[in-house]
Amino acid sequence: MNIKVIAFDADDTLWVNEPYFRQTEEKFCSLFSEFMPHHSLERELLKTEINNLSLYGYGIKGFVLSMVETALSVTAGQISVEAIGRILNLGKEMLNQPIELIDGVEEVLQSLQNRYRLVVATKGDLLDQERKLKKSGLSGYFHHIEVMSEKDDASYLKLVKHLDIQPHELLMIGNSLKSDIIPVLNIGAHAVHVPFHITWVHEMVESQVEHPNFKSVNSITEILQYLNS
Amino acid sequence: MNIKVIAFDADDTLWVNEPYFRQTEEKFCSLFSEFMPHHSLERELLKTEINNLSLYGYGIKGFVLSMVETALSVTAGQISVEAIGRILNLGKEMLNQPIELIDGVEEVLQSLQNRYRLVVATKGDLLDQERKLKKSGLSGYFHHIEVMSEKDDASYLKLVKHLDIQPHELLMIGNSLKSDIIPVLNIGAHAVHVPFHITWVHEMVESQVEHPNFKSVNSITEILQYLNS
Repeated sequence: MNIKVIAFDADDTLWVNEPYFRQTEEKFCSLFSEFMPHHSLERELLKTEINNLSLYGYGIKGFVLSMVETALSVTAGQISVEAIGRILNLGKEMLNQPIELIDGVEEVLQSLQNRYRLVVATKGDLLDQERKLKKSGLSGYFHHIEVMSEKDDASYLKLVKHLDIQPHELLMIGNSLKSDIIPVLNIGAHAVHVPFHITWVHEMVESQVEHPNFKSVNSITEILQYLNS
Repeated sequence: MNIKVIAFDADDTLWVNEPYFRQTEEKFCSLFSEFMPHHSLERELLKTEINNLSLYGYGIKGFVLSMVETALSVTAGQISVEAIGRILNLGKEMLNQPIELIDGVEEVLQSLQNRYRLVVATKGDLLDQERKLKKSGLSGYFHHIEVMSEKDDASYLKLVKHLDIQPHELLMIGNSLKSDIIPVLNIGAHAVHVPFHITWVHEMVESQVEHPNFKSVNSITEILQYLNS
């Protein structure tokens, strides 16, 4: 391996994220439990989110708009103004959530910062991701943050071009096989999978990954051994 | 001048944008005209938008969330579900709006594309701006698009660093004195102002700009003469 740039996914790789979405979803379902059982509400919300994904993209604002839309539809006109206000506030609480770093992240960044160019490569709302990076206290380790509207082969090729390196000089580290690993391997770059205990159903893939440029680890700190091996 | 990169603002510089916000605002005010006169509604909406700007950032999704919030507050609980659904749809219509290029834009890009590296430097939602660039048919002229969460001195310094040029090698072209001109001149780059007939009140500045690196033109096509002079 002759890695020049290491790109880190942000949500659920550097810091905790998905649990906040799940907690908010719980609160959303509780708000409307008189209209529909929990699991049906969850399904309706997911359906709305997926329908809106091409229009809204990833991130909290689109999630809030999809919650409002779902609430209007499942309550068939019986929704209270308070409930809609509550949804807007759930979104603001998410945007104001403090950052909880994942164990070992800072140790890994400290160890790698002088040997590689480190970047953040993430989906989501631009402003929100920049704010989270700032709040995380990790900004100083990174050359810059790339907020991508999608993480597919084409966007990683663009990233590599943008970084002015060859695909095989990039190592991507992330928790989503679908977004952080498979497209990265497809373009000839390296990828390390660090699973997180919760994955959004839309990010799930069935397949097992087998590839010479691929490694799966249990904790982000294992990356150090991998890079030294 | 020894310009290497020309950065174009997108909304109301390359294509029409602000009129769609104003039309949507009109429709929003009509929806709630029984609760409040038009100008008071406009004022309330603007207040909510400005309050939310640091949390939501620029772009349509934040605008829609602010419309919903304003509607809840001005109707004091008397809002109909239909009206909220209508607001969500106003947002989706904006996101699906066809692109209307501003006169002369394509001619200018054609003429400059082989002499300079051209980029788009814009605020707003990442996905939405990428989609508009794609729909505009102008992608081929640009090296890439930079979606910025804010357009201040610091973000332009970051842009210049990112482009790997000196500030004086950058020329920014845009319609907003506040976002496209003043911070650009502050960092020692060049700026050309092409006014658009409508400006969002939050983007307005009182001052007249006088600066050796500054030029104001009436139409984007005048940039060609300016660069040849």
